[in-house]
Amino acid sequence: MRETITLKPDEMPDAYYNVLADLPNPLDPPLDPATMKPIAPEKLLAIFPETLLEQEMSHERYVPIPEAVLREYFVYRPSPLIRAVFLEEYLKTNCKIYYKHEGLSPTGSHKVNTALPQAYYNKLAGVKTLVTETGAGQWGSALSYAGKKLGIAVKVFMVRVSYEQKPFRKKLMHLFSGDVSASPSSLTECGKRYSTDNPGSLGIAISEAIESVTTTKHAKYALGSVLNHVLLHQTIIGLELKAQCKKADIVPDTIIGCHGGGSNFGGTIFPFFPDKLEGRNIKFIAVEPESCPSLTKGEYRYDSGDTAGYTPLMKMYTLGKDFMPPAIHAGGLRYHGASPIVSKLLHDGYIEAVAYNQNDVLTAGKTFALTEGVVPAPESSHAIACAISEAKKNNGKTIIFTLSGHGHFDLNAYIDH
Amino acid sequence: MRETITLKPDEMPDAYYNVLADLPNPLDPPLDPATMKPIAPEKLLAIFPETLLEQEMSHERYVPIPEAVLREYFVYRPSPLIRAVFLEEYLKTNCKIYYKHEGLSPTGSHKVNTALPQAYYNKLAGVKTLVTETGAGQWGSALSYAGKKLGIAVKVFMVRVSYEQKPFRKKLMHLFSGDVSASPSSLTECGKRYSTDNPGSLGIAISEAIESVTTTKHAKYALGSVLNHVLLHQTIIGLELKAQCKKADIVPDTIIGCHGGGSNFGGTIFPFFPDKLEGRNIKFIAVEPESCPSLTKGEYRYDSGDTAGYTPLMKMYTLGKDFMPPAIHAGGLRYHGASPIVSKLLHDGYIEAVAYNQNDVLTAGKTFALTEGVVPAPESSHAIACAISEAKKNNGKTIIFTLSGHGHFDLNAYIDH
Repeated sequence: MRETITLKPDEMPDAYYNVLADLPNPLDPPLDPATMKPIAPEKLLAIFPETLLEQEMSHERYVPIPEAVLREYFVYRPSPLIRAVFLEEYLKTNCKIYYKHEGLSPTGSHKVNTALPQAYYNKLAGVKTLVTETGAGQWGSALSYAGKKLGIAVKVFMVRVSYEQKPFRKKLMHLFSGDVSASPSSLTECGKRYSTDNPGSLGIAISEAIESVTTTKHAKYALGSVLNHVLLHQTIIGLELKAQCKKADIVPDTIIGCHGGGSNFGGTIFPFFPDKLEGRNIKFIAVEPESCPSLTKGEYRYDSGDTAGYTPLMKMYTLGKDFMPPAIHAGGLRYHGASPIVSKLLHDGYIEAVAYNQNDVLTAGKTFALTEGVVPAPESSHAIACAISEAKKNNGKTIIFTLSGHGHFDLNAYIDH
Repeated sequence: MRETITLKPDEMPDAYYNVLADLPNPLDPPLDPATMKPIAPEKLLAIFPETLLEQEMSHERYVPIPEAVLREYFVYRPSPLIRAVFLEEYLKTNCKIYYKHEGLSPTGSHKVNTALPQAYYNKLAGVKTLVTETGAGQWGSALSYAGKKLGIAVKVFMVRVSYEQKPFRKKLMHLFSGDVSASPSSLTECGKRYSTDNPGSLGIAISEAIESVTTTKHAKYALGSVLNHVLLHQTIIGLELKAQCKKADIVPDTIIGCHGGGSNFGGTIFPFFPDKLEGRNIKFIAVEPESCPSLTKGEYRYDSGDTAGYTPLMKMYTLGKDFMPPAIHAGGLRYHGASPIVSKLLHDGYIEAVAYNQNDVLTAGKTFALTEGVVPAPESSHAIACAISEAKKNNGKTIIFTLSGHGHFDLNAYIDH
């Protein structure tokens, strides 16, 4: 019988955990591409509101979650932790496999967790329009929802290949009044450099969004991953997970998350990082696609977050800002770089990274749909594939992964496969 | 803060409730269209296995759920009962509104509840292929899933207008190896009578499925609503709901379900029927579309369940077997007739029926998505619209409705609207 570990609303954490407070070695600072010196925070005020910049730089261990954001979290949180007994049985494993189910959010993924505070802080700062990019559409739909809830317009540049592969995620943005364009678009100078049948990339879409902010009145930019404050917000996942483990006496040996920019992975594992520092034997695995292997094949160096070079330079694992990932189905993982914090943890040996090919990933996703009765997003299927192979390689371990989202808008992936 | 009432797996009911045991007046028997006399059960053995026919006729109050079906139920059941606090707040109502969330099933609706036992009993009887029809695709995907799980092939005739409006539900059937054709099709004599751009109806699709059974080896027919045994299986909803009400001290004044063939509505309210018989003041409301108003505008008389007249004649509220409902978005509610049991209860004054127009329904669905964070199926939005209007008309009442499914594959409906 399935075992579901729930938290009552009043057991939900009311502060985010900031892993920067506990990093053994400090992060290398973001650099101004014009001077190659650490960037002055004021320069970033053009695209981010002050509170989010403060969170980006903060070293406070806990950052309180505003009341209004908590209230919105209660619409879909705390999310359940579920023991995948049917998958275990299918695998005939003696490992215990649990998944933290983020697919029950209003737009079907963990992205809402940061969309809400970002919309909230921008609204508070008087911003009228948030501009962003989206890969598979998870982030764009989450921000559209948050904007609609908190009274702020949302404009989205959606990577063209996903715009075409995933028409329903575009419709979900429309449902929540998001304004969506395929990227590369003809709306920006950066976009005009590409032909209109270019499949696009997150790097290009970010450039378009940032450029668009500078030409839109009272607009700011919002990013769905990579940055410190985004990962900070996502620690709500790991904090809940930790509370659930404590409540149900679960001691994880391995925690797994899929990795694109790092928000799902970082948000899941950061709250467990202090345990590792204290010497607990716990393995953190980031799973990425073989076709976009930033962590496993990238270089650890300064690089731009976007293709046009509008963002500060960040020290991270990167395939190079001009890397054009193939049109794989896990559109949310098609990013050339990685979160600076996750990159640092990988470089310093605290986490592991592995890459899986699309075939194995989609097979794992189908297996999950048939055993656990949830069709996973192709992104999340990366974590499932890894959890399955960890269960096969090990005996008696407790393996937890985050199911970052459902795959109801990604059925093409499984059918084509 | 949201209040979610869950049941532990061992609190899930292990027997279905058969309302036929408690009907004050017996049902009128199904008639053989050839003789206009009560049909001999043997005649139905060509399309149904014996056990399901026994369930169709049984007057036993409780029918045990087979172990293998319970096991499959545990993949997604018990389903939560959720207090819609955010909707209540939005409405500024002092009524309490709860919804039983059936949208978390493997294919996103309550239909899996009967698909599993039907696949199970057919498999046990040696059947190799189940043939069925589907409107919006909820039933076809549920039966495909159940067939895949229990080892039986599934062939689906999908009403053409939905086949075209809801491409993703077709893909969901493919994911679970269902074989889907648009109806009217050129695969059956009945289908050939219509032009290939005919939007179709459930009545025609049922005829096609039944005809196809007679030309396919080791095949039987499966119906997703209307019949007694189907509603019997769906009482798992109402039985859980009753246990949840008891557990959380909830005393419902009004219970609401959308109504197409009657399986969601009947499954929800039947277990509460004995309370009403004992004199408890409880209101049951079936909600149907204004454009397909079987219960509110139909006649109570014998009619065929399908367009070609292959089924026995059933005493029910009907718009006539040749009624061609317009191409509304709630494809699951486009049926000319109604469950004989629900019809009888309506005729005898135990339940109420109301009809809502598509505009009001889709507006209610959007409101629900924005307040409760769940995009509902257009079918379910009928129940939501009614719950909202009941809350507006009343003071301090406890209103419960079943959210029969999510609307992730129905976004066109809300966007076009």
